[in-house]
Amino acid sequence: MSDEALLLIAASESDSNLYYATRFLAPDPFVFLQVGSRKILLMSDLEIDRARAQARVDEVLSLSEYEGKARQRWQSPRLIDIVGLLLEAYGVKAISVPSNFPLEYADRLRDTDVRVTARPDPFFPERLVKAEDEIAAIALTQRHTETAFEAALAVLRESQIRGEQVYWQGKPLTVEQLKKIINVSLMENDCVAQHTIVACGIDGVDPHNQGAGPIRPHESIVFDIFPRSSHTRYFADMTRTVVKGKASDGLRQMYDAVLAAQLRGIELIRESASGQAVHAEVARTLEGRGFETGVMDGRMQGFFHGTGHGVGLDIHEPPRISKVDHPLRAGQVVTVEPGLYYSRWGAVRIEDLVVVEAAGCRNLTHAPKAALLEL
Amino acid sequence: MSDEALLLIAASESDSNLYYATRFLAPDPFVFLQVGSRKILLMSDLEIDRARAQARVDEVLSLSEYEGKARQRWQSPRLIDIVGLLLEAYGVKAISVPSNFPLEYADRLRDTDVRVTARPDPFFPERLVKAEDEIAAIALTQRHTETAFEAALAVLRESQIRGEQVYWQGKPLTVEQLKKIINVSLMENDCVAQHTIVACGIDGVDPHNQGAGPIRPHESIVFDIFPRSSHTRYFADMTRTVVKGKASDGLRQMYDAVLAAQLRGIELIRESASGQAVHAEVARTLEGRGFETGVMDGRMQGFFHGTGHGVGLDIHEPPRISKVDHPLRAGQVVTVEPGLYYSRWGAVRIEDLVVVEAAGCRNLTHAPKAALLEL
Repeated sequence: MSDEALLLIAASESDSNLYYATRFLAPDPFVFLQVGSRKILLMSDLEIDRARAQARVDEVLSLSEYEGKARQRWQSPRLIDIVGLLLEAYGVKAISVPSNFPLEYADRLRDTDVRVTARPDPFFPERLVKAEDEIAAIALTQRHTETAFEAALAVLRESQIRGEQVYWQGKPLTVEQLKKIINVSLMENDCVAQHTIVACGIDGVDPHNQGAGPIRPHESIVFDIFPRSSHTRYFADMTRTVVKGKASDGLRQMYDAVLAAQLRGIELIRESASGQAVHAEVARTLEGRGFETGVMDGRMQGFFHGTGHGVGLDIHEPPRISKVDHPLRAGQVVTVEPGLYYSRWGAVRIEDLVVVEAAGCRNLTHAPKAALLEL
Repeated sequence: MSDEALLLIAASESDSNLYYATRFLAPDPFVFLQVGSRKILLMSDLEIDRARAQARVDEVLSLSEYEGKARQRWQSPRLIDIVGLLLEAYGVKAISVPSNFPLEYADRLRDTDVRVTARPDPFFPERLVKAEDEIAAIALTQRHTETAFEAALAVLRESQIRGEQVYWQGKPLTVEQLKKIINVSLMENDCVAQHTIVACGIDGVDPHNQGAGPIRPHESIVFDIFPRSSHTRYFADMTRTVVKGKASDGLRQMYDAVLAAQLRGIELIRESASGQAVHAEVARTLEGRGFETGVMDGRMQGFFHGTGHGVGLDIHEPPRISKVDHPLRAGQVVTVEPGLYYSRWGAVRIEDLVVVEAAGCRNLTHAPKAALLEL
């Protein structure tokens, strides 16, 4: 066999490479072998009929049948022994596997003199460049994201400030209520949102703090929503920052700076642009407005994360728009999400999702962001 | 260093071992090193403050600081180079890693003469035996599962049969509507359900077919619901089979057989019981009632999956109650879910979640199952 052979053993539910290769979704690990252009699955009795009907592969083989053969050689063959037999049957002596291929399997195959090489990420570079149907799927998840965000905004609009609290339907409004409204709205559109961030005031100053407790007036509220469509498996990702009440001057200046930095980033994104250069320019825009980054009062403050990342079947994919250089290519879908975080004023992050094109980019995000929304 | 060192590099969001070890949830990979009993994290600037506040570890180190040190040795150090420095700093020359440890990282560490050994699953055997607070978390997810199932049953009860269709609120009732009702109810209780199965008639005969399209009267409807709590991260798992209208005699006999087999399985579960023996007895009970298993009309029919599996931070954990022998231990939480699948009659599966105890088991599932529910 002169062609390169690829081997994946994973649950496609949690391994996007395997889902991409087969378009078959299963919760338990299964075996995918590609020899030249021929795609082969080895499936359990439980999944074999569904795999034959749904998987975009050339051949679906029975794991039980191979297990029967393996029993002639081993008393209790393990999955990887059976995979060894499959490789023998196809004359495969060397395989490429993803960087995250399980070490235990690799070691056992190597014990049988199969050459196993971990291919650096991305395993399927073509995954990063989205086809039109993939872009449409991401855009649709993005629409549902905006619908969910609008539902939360409607509640903030209806709610009332009394002293240091925000009331909705007669009770103090909480982050938990807003998250539920967002997540239920998404679920109604068959999108699953996990770890939605609704972070008020100081909570938002830690960019991955998911937020909790009462909504306080006159403080920043960062909404970061990144659901996955259960139908298409594609993610979207959006962040907006609003205030219930009146923002401080400091917060407003932060907002303007982040918006300017984000717009500058979007201007620079196009085929062949350097992710590193875009990030550097975004960071420079923030610095140019006097917002510095570093450890202050014992914690990181300022702008201390990347500008963006690819989005697709994974929420975080290459390319990164960050300190590490990744050249951008037409068809990639990336976030642009600068932020500023200061214990003194709060947090601002603004995130859109854009498609890289030959001469610029197309913004898939329609939610308004022109000014800090004071509700 | 005489103690064994453990190394995990993963996103705790998708790797339950890492979440179990740290109780810290993050969407991107991070580094966990345990030297003897000392637990150490290496965290990015983005996560370091949250990790210091939340992670149950002894020390949280700064990835950027280590990266700075690494730059003195390499021009563009990779994560695994930085991990190499960390191992040096702690005098670690040999590490145990989980079976799913990424091959690329292992190969690079081995290149620097670190001995890397994949430990067979389960990596943390203590994970399989649940503490009381873990059982309480699973039981609570199970309560929310039953609430969601009740919401779907209420719709089936309200709906009406007209000819070959089931109508609800003036329109044909669909699987998609029932799933949405279930998943939204779960989301209201902060549980995320993915791939909920509502499979009507022939769809259910493939046990992993998630179901689609109109609900048809007088056919089996299999509900398999397995959400995860966003709060506790613990799963529950339940299956019930109902009919809207009147079941055929064949379907009713299948139901009685599956119920008898399931009750027999539950009777046998206790400390030190053999999972294999429980599964064999469940299968025998079905056979004893004349329900055979094998390829019929070109597809697997009868009872062709395991009887049960552990449930916890993963939906499928050891032990298995199946053809492979796993001895059961007190404190394990397992499903008991025999099923029968025939193209001619439809599908029946009944699944409870039980805690293994010294002299028997405690059933965490309260939803009725005494007879095939004809709504």
